[in-house]
Parts: sequence; structure tokens; C-alpha cells
Amino acid sequence: MALKTYDEYFDRIRKLKRNVYIGGEKVDRTEYDGLRGSFRVIKETFDLAHDPQFEDLCTATSHLTGETINRFCHIHQSTEDLLKKQLMTKLLAIRVGGCIQRCMGIDPLKALSVVTYEMDQTLGTETNKNFLKYLRLWHENDLVGNCAQTDCKGHRLKRPHQQTDPDLYVRIVESRPDGIVVRGAKVDNTTAPVSDEVIVLPTRFMTDKDNDYAVAFAVPADADGMKMLVRPAIQHRRKYLQAPIAEIGDAESFTIFDDVFVPRERVFLDGKGDPRQTAFAGFLALLFAHYHRHSYTGCKPAVSEVLAGAAALVSEYSGIEKLDHVRDKISHLIGTAELVFAAGQMSAIRAEKSTSGTYIPDEVLTNAGRRLAGEEIYNEYKVLADLAGGLCATMPFEEEFFSEETGPLANKYLMRNPDISAENQHRCFRGIENLIVSEFAGLMQVAGLHGGGSPQLETISMMARYDLEPLKKIARYLFGIDNELPRYERPTVTPRKQLEKFRKMFGNKEK
Amino acid sequence: MALKTYDEYFDRIRKLKRNVYIGGEKVDRTEYDGLRGSFRVIKETFDLAHDPQFEDLCTATSHLTGETINRFCHIHQSTEDLLKKQLMTKLLAIRVGGCIQRCMGIDPLKALSVVTYEMDQTLGTETNKNFLKYLRLWHENDLVGNCAQTDCKGHRLKRPHQQTDPDLYVRIVESRPDGIVVRGAKVDNTTAPVSDEVIVLPTRFMTDKDNDYAVAFAVPADADGMKMLVRPAIQHRRKYLQAPIAEIGDAESFTIFDDVFVPRERVFLDGKGDPRQTAFAGFLALLFAHYHRHSYTGCKPAVSEVLAGAAALVSEYSGIEKLDHVRDKISHLIGTAELVFAAGQMSAIRAEKSTSGTYIPDEVLTNAGRRLAGEEIYNEYKVLADLAGGLCATMPFEEEFFSEETGPLANKYLMRNPDISAENQHRCFRGIENLIVSEFAGLMQVAGLHGGGSPQLETISMMARYDLEPLKKIARYLFGIDNELPRYERPTVTPRKQLEKFRKMFGNKEK
Amino acid sequence: MALKTYDEYFDRIRKLKRNVYIGGEKVDRTEYDGLRGSFRVIKETFDLAHDPQFEDLCTATSHLTGETINRFCHIHQSTEDLLKKQLMTKLLAIRVGGCIQRCMGIDPLKALSVVTYEMDQTLGTETNKNFLKYLRLWHENDLVGNCAQTDCKGHRLKRPHQQTDPDLYVRIVESRPDGIVVRGAKVDNTTAPVSDEVIVLPTRFMTDKDNDYAVAFAVPADADGMKMLVRPAIQHRRKYLQAPIAEIGDAESFTIFDDVFVPRERVFLDGKGDPRQTAFAGFLALLFAHYHRHSYTGCKPAVSEVLAGAAALVSEYSGIEKLDHVRDKISHLIGTAELVFAAGQMSAIRAEKSTSGTYIPDEVLTNAGRRLAGEEIYNEYKVLADLAGGLCATMPFEEEFFSEETGPLANKYLMRNPDISAENQHRCFRGIENLIVSEFAGLMQVAGLHGGGSPQLETISMMARYDLEPLKKIARYLFGIDNELPRYERPTVTPRKQLEKFRKMFGNKEK
Amino acid sequence: MALKTYDEYFDRIRKLKRNVYIGGEKVDRTEYDGLRGSFRVIKETFDLAHDPQFEDLCTATSHLTGETINRFCHIHQSTEDLLKKQLMTKLLAIRVGGCIQRCMGIDPLKALSVVTYEMDQTLGTETNKNFLKYLRLWHENDLVGNCAQTDCKGHRLKRPHQQTDPDLYVRIVESRPDGIVVRGAKVDNTTAPVSDEVIVLPTRFMTDKDNDYAVAFAVPADADGMKMLVRPAIQHRRKYLQAPIAEIGDAESFTIFDDVFVPRERVFLDGKGDPRQTAFAGFLALLFAHYHRHSYTGCKPAVSEVLAGAAALVSEYSGIEKLDHVRDKISHLIGTAELVFAAGQMSAIRAEKSTSGTYIPDEVLTNAGRRLAGEEIYNEYKVLADLAGGLCATMPFEEEFFSEETGPLANKYLMRNPDISAENQHRCFRGIENLIVSEFAGLMQVAGLHGGGSPQLETISMMARYDLEPLKKIARYLFGIDNELPRYERPTVTPRKQLEKFRKMFGNKEK
Repeated sequence: MALKTYDEYFDRIRKLKRNVYIGGEKVDRTEYDGLRGSFRVIKETFDLAHDPQFEDLCTATSHLTGETINRFCHIHQSTEDLLKKQLMTKLLAIRVGGCIQRCMGIDPLKALSVVTYEMDQTLGTETNKNFLKYLRLWHENDLVGNCAQTDCKGHRLKRPHQQTDPDLYVRIVESRPDGIVVRGAKVDNTTAPVSDEVIVLPTRFMTDKDNDYAVAFAVPADADGMKMLVRPAIQHRRKYLQAPIAEIGDAESFTIFDDVFVPRERVFLDGKGDPRQTAFAGFLALLFAHYHRHSYTGCKPAVSEVLAGAAALVSEYSGIEKLDHVRDKISHLIGTAELVFAAGQMSAIRAEKSTSGTYIPDEVLTNAGRRLAGEEIYNEYKVLADLAGGLCATMPFEEEFFSEETGPLANKYLMRNPDISAENQHRCFRGIENLIVSEFAGLMQVAGLHGGGSPQLETISMMARYDLEPLKKIARYLFGIDNELPRYERPTVTPRKQLEKFRKMFGNKEK
Repeated sequence: MALKTYDEYFDRIRKLKRNVYIGGEKVDRTEYDGLRGSFRVIKETFDLAHDPQFEDLCTATSHLTGETINRFCHIHQSTEDLLKKQLMTKLLAIRVGGCIQRCMGIDPLKALSVVTYEMDQTLGTETNKNFLKYLRLWHENDLVGNCAQTDCKGHRLKRPHQQTDPDLYVRIVESRPDGIVVRGAKVDNTTAPVSDEVIVLPTRFMTDKDNDYAVAFAVPADADGMKMLVRPAIQHRRKYLQAPIAEIGDAESFTIFDDVFVPRERVFLDGKGDPRQTAFAGFLALLFAHYHRHSYTGCKPAVSEVLAGAAALVSEYSGIEKLDHVRDKISHLIGTAELVFAAGQMSAIRAEKSTSGTYIPDEVLTNAGRRLAGEEIYNEYKVLADLAGGLCATMPFEEEFFSEETGPLANKYLMRNPDISAENQHRCFRGIENLIVSEFAGLMQVAGLHGGGSPQLETISMMARYDLEPLKKIARYLFGIDNELPRYERPTVTPRKQLEKFRKMFGNKEK
Repeated sequence: MALKTYDEYFDRIRKLKRNVYIGGEKVDRTEYDGLRGSFRVIKETFDLAHDPQFEDLCTATSHLTGETINRFCHIHQSTEDLLKKQLMTKLLAIRVGGCIQRCMGIDPLKALSVVTYEMDQTLGTETNKNFLKYLRLWHENDLVGNCAQTDCKGHRLKRPHQQTDPDLYVRIVESRPDGIVVRGAKVDNTTAPVSDEVIVLPTRFMTDKDNDYAVAFAVPADADGMKMLVRPAIQHRRKYLQAPIAEIGDAESFTIFDDVFVPRERVFLDGKGDPRQTAFAGFLALLFAHYHRHSYTGCKPAVSEVLAGAAALVSEYSGIEKLDHVRDKISHLIGTAELVFAAGQMSAIRAEKSTSGTYIPDEVLTNAGRRLAGEEIYNEYKVLADLAGGLCATMPFEEEFFSEETGPLANKYLMRNPDISAENQHRCFRGIENLIVSEFAGLMQVAGLHGGGSPQLETISMMARYDLEPLKKIARYLFGIDNELPRYERPTVTPRKQLEKFRKMFGNKEK
Repeated sequence: MALKTYDEYFDRIRKLKRNVYIGGEKVDRTEYDGLRGSFRVIKETFDLAHDPQFEDLCTATSHLTGETINRFCHIHQSTEDLLKKQLMTKLLAIRVGGCIQRCMGIDPLKALSVVTYEMDQTLGTETNKNFLKYLRLWHENDLVGNCAQTDCKGHRLKRPHQQTDPDLYVRIVESRPDGIVVRGAKVDNTTAPVSDEVIVLPTRFMTDKDNDYAVAFAVPADADGMKMLVRPAIQHRRKYLQAPIAEIGDAESFTIFDDVFVPRERVFLDGKGDPRQTAFAGFLALLFAHYHRHSYTGCKPAVSEVLAGAAALVSEYSGIEKLDHVRDKISHLIGTAELVFAAGQMSAIRAEKSTSGTYIPDEVLTNAGRRLAGEEIYNEYKVLADLAGGLCATMPFEEEFFSEETGPLANKYLMRNPDISAENQHRCFRGIENLIVSEFAGLMQVAGLHGGGSPQLETISMMARYDLEPLKKIARYLFGIDNELPRYERPTVTPRKQLEKFRKMFGNKEK
């Protein structure tokens, strides 16, 4: 059966060779305590695929094998797929109080499905066949993956080939018929230490001086020469009051490719071997970002609602739930969640089928939605902190509430709403502490801002797809400069138009 | 033919009895210069219904007569109707640079179509039949209407019956078998002086002490006893450089009902005659507001795009179009337009068919969208002012650019981009002056904030339809207070649920 | 006596030659109705200098003549002067509900007092002597002036000498021993049509290719060859309810210098005649902007308080004064006023005495204060619109409230708070209409944003004076990169340091 | 000598009886590792008082003993004292990257110095004598204290006597001639576990039903019956790269008064023993908050500058320092720092001498300044996160950079600016991690919002001291409702006016 269980997945991870470094040790992934939080999140994605309440969302039918697969392995073949993916992402993110992590692996595959196809059509390469073979591996094994995209980048204003050290962007040091050898490092690699596979994509457009850096490929998570320097983030382990919010975690890898060999059938872009392919690097970079931002239109509303739910709960417990300013603040968290989710849904509904068959959601709207979420994230934490009050940051440790000497006093003085037990009030503040005052919270803030690209980058993507001329035409008509205003069409460059442009552009370059 | 021409409409208005007061005079509507701007806007709604480019949007099929009618007379019978209404509103608003005005007449009819039906079902009244008869009049004659909703309201913290003067909310002074006599005034009545009909709705929930104030009806715009005290707003008449932006205008009426008799067949709510009907006043008030807010998800994105278009044009003319901060600012106008329009579309797609057959868009999302637009409106003007610079407010009058003595100098020094003619640069700044520095601009700012209800009111409506309990349940689950989290459903009170509640509530009141 | 009366001033203006063009006519300044609003504002500055309640603020002692002069003619000789200037500006701006206009004339003289002195010290020129002679004219005659600074600027990304038309920045076409001939135009010239004098300053830094554009001088307002294309902004004339807010106005000139001869003793910068002087153009431009921004720390808090006062009044009249959200919104207008005024005061207290004896307030803090005011201006209008409701934009004209037929009804329905007369409620909404929905309001918004420079420019000035190195040193110390952190000094470049740099820089250029 | 050394202080703390509970243990304060961060901060306040560079700021002359004392033990006797206190607070906060903690002890004493004096004058009590005796203890011993103000508060909308459990606000269970017995708990007690003394003040106004809750007193930190449930927050201990930012910490106490006896000479408010004193509870609560908010005008600008410094440093290291959007963002951190500090300075300059001789800074302006800081705090973290990028949250642990296997690779790929050593780039990101992604950072965010009172509370205090009538008078004058506008005085209720009101009010209550 193509749908695997969490245990089957965990077994696979257990068998990986050791290449995860934490605190100066090479650790065993499945034994190391600091990774339990990441596994807990991944578990949700396996378990719910087997849960009748969620299976319509969490499974899909493979267009390669016809079998039922986990939706986290599926490539959108329709608008409905996009909508279900978005809703699944939201509902699962709610259940883990934040990032569901598994988008990381499938979002790059969506981009590769489009770009390898298009590249083959344009250049006569045969990459898509390899890609589909690789994708079938996912469908058959219910794999978990990481997308290693963000390069170290060195000096931000210099291009890859201009850096003092040529390795500051991942590059191909050798391109041979049987494969490539790559060197460099990728950062901010969420999920990598609990993944089966690592998929590497370029991080930006590449010029023809950057051919060596135009590279995309996939390797198993324990590939020879690959080292993961991992930073785990988990909550303090609870001693008395177990709670989902305390069990989740995250792990980020700084992944080093120390001359890793990748067999040809796992190479999806090779600008060194075939410089014509360099032109596709940027398209691939942006398309992954785009799919990932569309995933954020699912998970970010979940984050807003989790924060809003906590804000509503603590307001109830403190007795201030009905105050105007409290409702106003909560309503703004909800409003952001509503607008961002609706942006994702409409982006799905307006999606265009690419030549490869994969659906691409509306880019301008997806970016507008993701950007709003990113711009608001710190403010959302502020609202919860505001309504929770200082105690979420100053509350004594659990033990003080359970020791004989201090427990009864601690519980007595914690009481707010007399209809709620002291333990539940304790749980509420302890949960909010986990949500907004922990190391993990700091990570979630940064991820909420930068994940999938910061607001600055979304503005750039959005404006790259938006043609200002028709907007200016409105002004010219209203101001009497132009006499006519034909029926206005929303001035966006759709993916298909982009592809056409692309082929045309390429035509000129081809020899 | 049910579709009329602008001339036919204008003829009807010409024949109305005089009851419009401006500047101390009782004026002839079609002769008075100050109303030309409003007529110019209304003209667009008639003309485009006959224009092949727009007829699919601007016309619909009457569900009463089966004939082709102007969509501004149509009641949504499907999601497609809602989507087309929204798009039509946007495209026409773009063409007049702002409010298209004619939503005013049809939005109350949508609310009445639902509420009269529901009231009949609940109370056994026969109002809907009268309503449909009245609606047929619209379909057959392509009518233009005003919704007179906002009462004077006197002291804001007192209910209607608590006011010192009992007339500060419109009330029924007499309820007779053949009709009712009403007294009071309604304010902020856009479009009233160029309307065929005035539809009066309650402005808020009414308690059973407020029966006299639970009233809804329709009268011809020249009904005996009705006086319109009108404030027109138009742009300075151009002498040399004609432009659509300078031709549009607005007219607001402070409409007084000085003991106006309304025949029974035009009465749609009568809490004095039948106190059971009072309970429907608030529902009617909110439902009109809701339809009107959904209309705003069409026109407000148009306003944002008109301002963005002007910002892009003046940036091009000044040579700063490519600067990062310029693109960033414009992208935020576009982002707001995108998010608000998408909110309206998804609200349409999620719409529920009421028992009457009329579709009701998603209330939470519509309010979230309209609120964002209202919160941003002043900021949008700021962005355009920022990019245009001071000249839009300090530019000499037109004559200085055309006089022999100063014209050549004025034109010489106006030049920015040497590729653009002085006249076009003049047109651009003159247009921006009209858009953001005129009396009309001041009105548009206030309307952008308050039209359909201020952000404060949208927050209240939104939260009235949003159930916080499921959100709190998420927190309780994550914090370990509840053990289970069933599949989460977006916690909104849909219209149908509201109606059920309503009937149940009413059941208890009925004797 | 050096202190003149309004009538004496008005007589002077009456005698000026006609060079003001409005609506295609060359008008008589003192007869033309559209300028009455500007005169009304200027009158306040003369009258209060004779009013015992205000004379300590509105007069000063001339450091040239020892006589009592109007403070609007005085150059700051101490911190106390700066503080009194700021407070005077605020109190007078409150009385006219906005811009007090007369800063326009004196602020450039403050900059010239510093820069001409410094230039003489550096280059051995004798400009300051001429300047002081010119200043004495002001002290003896209580003059009113305009600073014509903003050039047309053509293409914004090109420097003066790069423009297609060389006249798009004011330039010296001829430099002779007896004076210079200038050509070009200046825009956004507030107060110019009611001024005795026009003072021309450069608008930006000039490179040595821009020598011809490095020019500063003063001319009488009716100088030969100078044409003022004037845009007046006044409120609708009231027929029944006179009120200060309806009497004030503004007039902006687009001033053309059509080969105007300026005698040498009125020339304060001449980069064409003496290219070494070019280096002082930018310093002069910035220093005027700086003094003008400090003036804004007086008038902008007044604007915030005027808007807050109107918001508080209309809230009282509507009965909502005690609501939390109302108080919160008003408190933010007050908070901005407080912070901006305090920034101006502390800038005065930290002021440095320049070598010329003129005091220069703290540049970083002044810019931070002015920027906050500019960033908030549109939001402040939004708050008042929010609390006033739609009526401020839709209220019938005055006549409807006084006609026999509609007056009693109009007044009846206007009533909110029954303890306030209908007339006063009318006055309140009419006043708010003038404040926020009129053409004049549009101008005030733009002026509130751009006057003295937009927030963008204040950021640039602020950062030009702020040395980031000491800030980075804090980070280096805390992060363990540097071992020591000496006592931290606020890292600003004071005027004196700037002057030293300047002299040093110049030393290198001098032959 | 009155000025003690850190070692002398540390010895005193070592001798305190054990009553600090952490993680289920009763710990030894000076041995427990989790408190080292707090001691590190306190150390700075002792050391710099002996440092020639800082002694003018960090010491003062006791008005009781005439000896040189640490300024953190001094009560403001002049505006200069206020200014020096503010600057000292800022400079020391910069050195520890945040809260300097020792304001906690002295700010309540400032409030007590005013209120006990005033109470004695009004009621004929003799509290101030006791207070001064207690203060002398501070001056002679260079004490460190905590102000325990925030009560548990139970249900937020109920007053103390209305709570289900009467102990949810600290109360006097017995008032005897020799002293009082108190019960209850106080939360959010920063610095308590490293303090010599705990000073208890009421948290709000008390009605005459709340007499038992009107209590203020001081006890040694190891008073019998007092238990401190402590939550420490420190950074991960560094193994290789020592840095001040990693050494600082905080500790918050949930302090329980389990029937603690306080001798009469340490009781400063006793509403149970003398119900007339109840009226002074609120005044005391607000006045402490006010002094503490004024302290925040020193430390919050330091926080903004520390964040700005880190932002500037990481921008330099990444090579983006000169980009417009980078400078714009940093300039806004600086702008907030400037405005808040200036607000504190002007509040000091406008301070009023109370009848007791203690100076009270301007309340409206202090609140406006502190509020801006609180409103901006989360945004400031966002700016630094934005400019630092994701690495600050995802960077591998220190060990990976120093191990033989991964160190060279980790350092190679960390490089950005080739002119900066890998170690310094490492230090920079590690420092930013400490600043914004740690548990401590979460606490600092919450403290930045709530410390001294949330923005909501500052709005309330500000508006309580601001009289809207004069503002409305401006509107009435401009709108023609009032004919005259006398010279406008800033409409604040100064402390002295407040005291007069207070005495008058009290006169009525006195028997």
C-alpha cells in the first residue's frame, strides 16, 4: 500500500546513516531527544491520512500510480487539489499549533514538475522523465523531504560568481555523464533532519556567468559527503501537565555538501553540463517560492487562529472577554486569517494549468496574501501578549505548582475566573508561555516573517507579475489623456504568459 | 423592452415634482448644474448595458419576467450573479473613478427579498407578495433608487424611543389598513436626488419599545411630504482640458419625511401595525448593510486601483517609477485591492441560498474585506499625495496655462519627463488634484471610511457572526485542557443558521 | 516704531505692482476675494504682537537695532528664542486652525544668517554684511516674506545641468558686478501673493557642474520680470454662521523668474560669479529645511490639537464622549501632538550656537519629530472623520437651515445632544466640513505631508546627521566583538561639527 | 562609606534566609546558576558608581545624610536629578542590552516620599517620618529592592472585595498597634530574588469597601512567611564565545505573603487600621507607575538603540547597509528612541516640585512617550529579524563551529562580508539569536509591552491627567460657537493641582 504509517516512516529514518551534528556530537536521529518535537509534527501527517475524519483531505490519488497516496506527496492536478491542499495545511497546522513541516518536501517537486517539463519542451532535454521516476518513488513510499534552497549567499549585493569564496552558493564542481559533484551549503533547512530526502534548488536567477550554480537535484538524507549541522527547537519537557503545544518542535539544518556525488537520474538542472539550462534556474527558484507561499496561505491563517484562540481563552479566564478593545483586537487576528486564507482559495480557483498538467495558483494574489501574513506576524504576538498580561512570561515553573510546600499557594493565587479550575488556568498560561515566550516562539516569529520569503521579496514577486501599464491607462483615461478605456483586464502575467515569454526569450539564446 | 436608455431615465427624472432643495432654492433636478456629476455617473450604468463589451456583466435575466434587465435591478439568484455583480461594480467604478451609485437602489431590495419572505414564513404575513410586485416595477422600468437607511439618531447612546424628540428616528405616526403615515428624516442619502425611488429601511435593531420605528417601505422620489435637502459635490468645471474625472460628481440628500403617506402595498415592515414585525427590523438593517458591504468589495478595489494608477502615472512622469520605495508604496495599494476583491469573490463562492432563493455572501469574510478597505482609505490618499508631491495641491488654475501672457511659461516649467507633452503632464496633475485635493475628494475619503458602515461597525458585524468557542477549543486542545480536537469547522453563523435561530426565537414570542 | 500694524502692512501690499495671475487675470492682491483668507491669517500675526496676552511671545528684541520687533522677523539668538518661537507658532496656529504662514519668510533668513557668515569666514567673501543690511530692513519694517525654494525639478533623477531644458532649476543667466540675472521658476510658494518680499534659496546640493544653479537672493514681491501664478484656497463664504475656520485661507504661487535682475546687495549666493560658493548651496538648502521643520514642531501639534478638539466636541455633541474607543482615538491625536512638540522643545534646549551667533536646534530630533507628524497626518483626518460620522460630508448647505420652508425641519433633525442648541450643532458639523472635507482640507493634508519636506526627506536628513558607528559599537560590545564600551555619546553630527567638516572639505578645494 | 561594592552587596544577599523556590527546590540565591544573569546586571550598577567615566551619573548626594550615594538609592530633588536618572538608566541599559533592574527598588520609594508626606499633611498621620527613617537605611547601605505591586487580581472586572477568594489582592488580615499581618501574593516581581528589600504597594484605586487592601509596606527579602516562587530567564551558557549579551538575565518572582508580620515602622499605608488612608491607595499606585514609566523613557530608548545597533551591524556584515529600505527601517528604530527619550527629558524639565520636595515629571508627556515605546516594541523586533534574515533563528550550536569535523566547514559557509572574520560574523548572529530568538527575548518583548503598564493603561493615565475642555474650546472658537479664545494653556492636571483636589476631596471624608 502506498500510504505508509508513522512507524514505517520512523523505521526508515532510523536506518539512515548518521550525518546529523548537534552540540558537537554526531547524533542518532531517532534517539536524540531534541528531535522528538519534529517527529511529533510529522506523525500528525501520517496519522490523519488514516483517520476517517481527515482522509478526504489528507489523501489523494496518484496521477502516476493511480493509488491512494498521502496528499503531502501529491502534485496538484486540479483546482480542487489546490483547495484541498490549502485546507489540509490549515487544519493540520491548527493541530500542531504552527508549522506542519511536510510542505517542505512536496513544494519543490511541484516546481520541478512544471520546470523540467517545460525545459524538455524547450531544449529537448529529458529531465522530466527522470523527475517523474523520482516522483514515483515518493508516491510509492510516502516520503518526507526537505527543500534545501537558501544558499549562504555571502555578500548580499554580489552574484554567485562574484563572491570571494566561489562556494558560497551551492555549485557543480564536476559534471560527468553519470552525474554531478556538488559543493556548498544550504541554510534554514527546516525538516531536513527528519527527512528521507533532500531536494536542492537554486535560490535566485542566474546569469550566464553563474552556470555552475544553476543546479537542482535530489539526494537521500544520508548521502555521502552531506553533513547536517542541526539546530533543534523544542519546548521544555513538561513534568506534570502534558499538552500538545509542549510536544511540538522544529529542527533546522545548515546542510553542507562536501563534494557530494549525485547520479544523473537525480539531477534536474545542470547549468555546468548544459549552459542552456541556466536560464531555468530563476524560474525554478521563483516557482518553488510561489508554491511554498501558497502553502503559507494555509498555515499562516492557522497560526493567526491559534493565537486568536489563545487570546480568546485567556480573556475568558481573566473575565475580560466582552470588553470592546479585547474583541476588537481578537477580531483583527481573525480578519487577517480570513483574508489570507481567502487569498489562497481564490488563487487556487484562478489557478492555471501549466503545460505539464500541474496547476499554478494566482501569483499576484498569493503574494499579496502571504505578504499580509508576514507583515502582521509580530503584531499578532503583540496582541496575545497584550491580552494575556505579564504572567505568561513570569510564571513560576511547573514544579512550584505541584510541590507540597508551594503548590496549594501557587494554585490559590493563580485563580482568575472562579468557574475554571486552577489547573486549567495554569495550563492556559503555560500554553501561552510555550506559544509566545519560548525559544520556539522566537523561531516561529522569524519563520512567520521570513518563511517562503520576507514581505520585501513578496512585493518584488508580486510586482514582477503585475503589469502597471493597464493601471496607468485607467489614470490616462480618467484624466483625459486617452479617450477610450476598453474593458479592463486584471493586469497580471499568468504563468502561461510567462512560459511563452520564456520560450521566446530562450529561442534567441539557443544555438 | 425592459432595458431602458439613459435618455428614457432622464426623461422620467425630469417629470418628477420638485422637492429638491439646494442653497435655499427648490431646484429642477435635471436643470440644476450641481447634479450633472451624479447624472454623468448614472449614465454609465445605462450606456454600458447596451455596450457589447460589457453587456454580459451589466445585464441579467429577470427571475420575475424572464426579460433581460440591467444587473443593477437584479436580485442574486446564484453565486455567478454575485460574482458578476462584484466585477461589474469594480469595472464601472474604475470608469467613473469612484462610486457608481446605483448599488444604493438595489442593495436594499436584496435584503427585502430575503426578510419579507422569511417574515411571511414565520408570521404568516403577506409582505413578500407586495415586495415582488414592487420589484417587478423595477425590472420592467430599469429604475434607479436610493436607500434611505441612516436615521438622524439624536443622542447616540439612546434608543429611538428614549430620544427627547421622538422623531429622531423615522417612525410610523399612523398605521391604517390602507397604509402608513411616516415622520422623521434620513441622512447620508447618496443618489437620492437623481433617483426614481426611495427605499426606506431601519437603521438598527429595535426593541419592543421601539415598535413605531420598525418600518420599511418604498416611495417615488417625489412623494408628497418628502423633502430632499441636497448637498451636491462636483469638480470645478474645466474650461480647456475636458476629462472624465472632472465630470463626475455626487449628491447627498438629507431627506425629510414630513408625514408622508405610504400605501400598504409599498409597506414592507410595520411594527406599529403588527408589533411582531419589530423583531425583523434589525435583521433587515444588517442584511442591507451586508449586501452593501459586498458591493464595496467591488468598488473599493476600483478606488485603490484608480489611486494606484494615478500614482504609477505621476511616478512615470516624474521619472521615479523604478525606485524601490515608489514600487513598494504602489504595491501596497494593489495588495489592498487584491485582498479586498478576493474577499468579495470568496464570499460569493461561499454564498448560501436563503429560503427565499436570494443568495447571501459570506458575512465574516465580506466584513473582513470591507473593513480592510476602510482602514486603509486615508493611507491610500497619503500614498498618492506622497508620490505626486505638493504640486497637485498648489498648481495654478487652468487659465494660467492657456493665457497668452503666462501660458508658455507655465507649460515650460511644468515639464518633467521630456517625452511627455506639457499638456499631458498638466492633465495628470489636474486629474490628481480632482482625485485627492478637491471637496469631492474629501467626500470620497469620508465615504470610503463610513460608506456601508465604518470599520468599527464591520468589526461588530463580523464578531456577531463569528463563534469564538471553536477557536477557544483549539487553544484548549493545544494546552491540554481538552483531549480531543475534532475536525475544525470555520466557526461562523451562516445566514441559514441565523434564520433558524430567528424562527426559534420568534416562536417563543409568538402568542 | 519697528512693530507695525496690520493696516500698515496691508497698505504696503496694496501699493505693490500687479504681477499676481489668477484665473487668467492679473489681479489686485488686496481687492481679489480669493486672497482674503491669507490676509486673515497674516492679520493674526500683527494683531497679537500688540495684544498684552501674547506680546511676550509675539515680540522680541532686535539684535541689530535693539528695538522691539515682531518675533516673525527675529533670528534666534538663544535657546529661549527657539522655545518662544515654537510656542508662538503653536498658539497662533491654533487660532487660525492651521498654517500661520509667516514662518515662510523668516526661516530662510535664519539659514542665510548662518551660511553667509560661514561662507565669508571660509572664502573671504562679504555676503553676511549685505545680509545683515537686508535683515535690518525686516526689523525696521515688520516685513512679510515668502521663501521660494522648491524648483520645478523636471526629471527627478537628473541633476540641474542634466535636464533637457536648462531652466528647470532657477539659474543665474548672467553674473555681473552690480548683480545677477536669474531665470526659472519656483513652486509651492505659500504666502507669496501676500508677501512684501520673496527670498530665493537653492533646493538641493549642487555639484560643480551646477554652478549656475547655486543661487540665493531676495527681491521685492513685485520685482520686474517676476510673475506669480497663484492658486488661492478659501472656504465657501458663510452667509449666516460666521466662524474663524471659514475665514482662513491659503494661497500658493508658482513663481516665474523671467530674467529678473537682482542687485548685488541682495545676492546671497552666486555660484556662477564665484564657483567656490557652489559648495554652500546644499548647506543652505538643508538649513532652511531644518529651521522650517523646527517651525513645524510648533504648528503640527496645533493641527493635531485642533483636530482633537473637534473630535472631542463632536463626540460630546453625539453623546459618545466617554466611550473607550473614542477616548483612545482622541488620545492618539494628543499623543502625537505631545511627542512632536516635546521633540521641538528638546531640539531647542539642545541647540548649538553657530559661529554667526544664530542658534541651530538639534537636527536628528527635529527631523524625528517632524517625520512623525507627517506620517500621522492622514490618519489624524481619519480619526476625526471616524468620530464625526458621514454628516460632515453630506450636510445640506447653510441656506437650507435658514429658509422658512426647510429651516425648522433641518434644525429639528440635526439635534443630537438635547442640551446643545441646533445652531451650535450646525456650527460644529459645518466647522468639521471646513476642516476635513473642503478643498482647503485637501491642501492641508498635502501640506501636512510635504510641507518642510516629506517623511522620506526627513529620514534622509536625519540619517545624514546620525552616525551609525557608535550604535554598531554597542552591538559589537554586547556581542563580544569589542571588549570595551566607553561611555556612549549620542552619535549625531552637530552643526558645528558639520561646519568644521565643511571648512576642511573646502580648504581642499580652494586654490 | 555609603557607596558599597558589588561584593559587599553579594555578601548581604548570601546571608539571606532561603525562601526562593525554583523547580521544586528551595535554592541558595547566590549559588543557584539561574540567577547569575540577574546578578550580572546588578553588578553593573555597583561597578559604574565607582567608575570615573560614569560616577557623575551613577552617584548623587543624599539629601538625608549628605553623603555620596548610588543614584539608584536617590529620590529626585531637582530637575537635574530627573535628567541624570534618565540618562544613567539609558547608558546602563545599553551596557546590559536591556533592563537594568534596579529602578524597581527606588521608584516605589519616590512615590512613597510624596504620598506619605501628603497623607501626613492631610490626615495628621506620621508615616513620612517612618518612611524617611527607612529611606536612610537605603542611603547608608546602598540597598537593592523590588517593588511588589501587581496583585493576582483574580477576575479582572471585580474589585478586591468582590473576588470569590478575598486574598486575590494582598490584604491586611490584622492591624495591630505594633504592626500589621498581611496575606496574598504579588506577581511579575522583577529583581525580587536578588533584592535586599521588598516594597509592597497597592495596584489600583480602592473604594471604601476595599480598606483591607489599602496597604503599603517594606520587608526584608527573607521576611518570615514570604515565599518567592521564581522564574529565572538566562541565555544558554556559551562555551567558546563569551559575550555580555549572553551573560545577562532576569528573574521574576511570584511572591506569596503567607501571613507576614510587618512592624509598624515599616508600614506606609494601612487602610484597615485607619480607613481614611484608603483614599491614598490609588494615588500611590499611579505615582509609582508614573515614576516607573519615566524610568522607561530611559531604558526603552536603550533597547531601541541596541536593536538598531544590531540591525546596523548585521546589515554591514551582509553588505546591505546602504540600501534605502535598510536605512529607512533602522531610522525608524532610531526615531522612536529619540522621541521617547526626548519625551522623558522634557517631562523632567517640566517637572513640578511636590510639597514633599520630591520632583514629579510631566505625566501626560511621560505617558505619551512610554506608550509609543510599548506600541512599537514588537515592531522593533520585527525590523531586526527582517534585516538579520532567518539565520539568527536557525544557526547551528556553537560546538559545530569549533569541532574538528564540522568547524572549518561551518565557518567557511558563514562568511558574508569577506573583510570580517568568521568568528565575528558568528558572534554577530549568535548575539542576535540571544537578543531576539531566545526565551529571554520572549520575556523582553512582553516586558517591553507591559512593563510599567501596557499602552492601554498609559492611555488611561494620560487621559486622566488631560483636560479635554480647553481642546474643545479651541473647536468652539474656530467654529464660531465661542467668540473668544484666551491664550491657550496646555490642559493638564499637574501633580500639585491633583494634590489640591485630593485634599479638598479628602476634607469632605474626614470626620
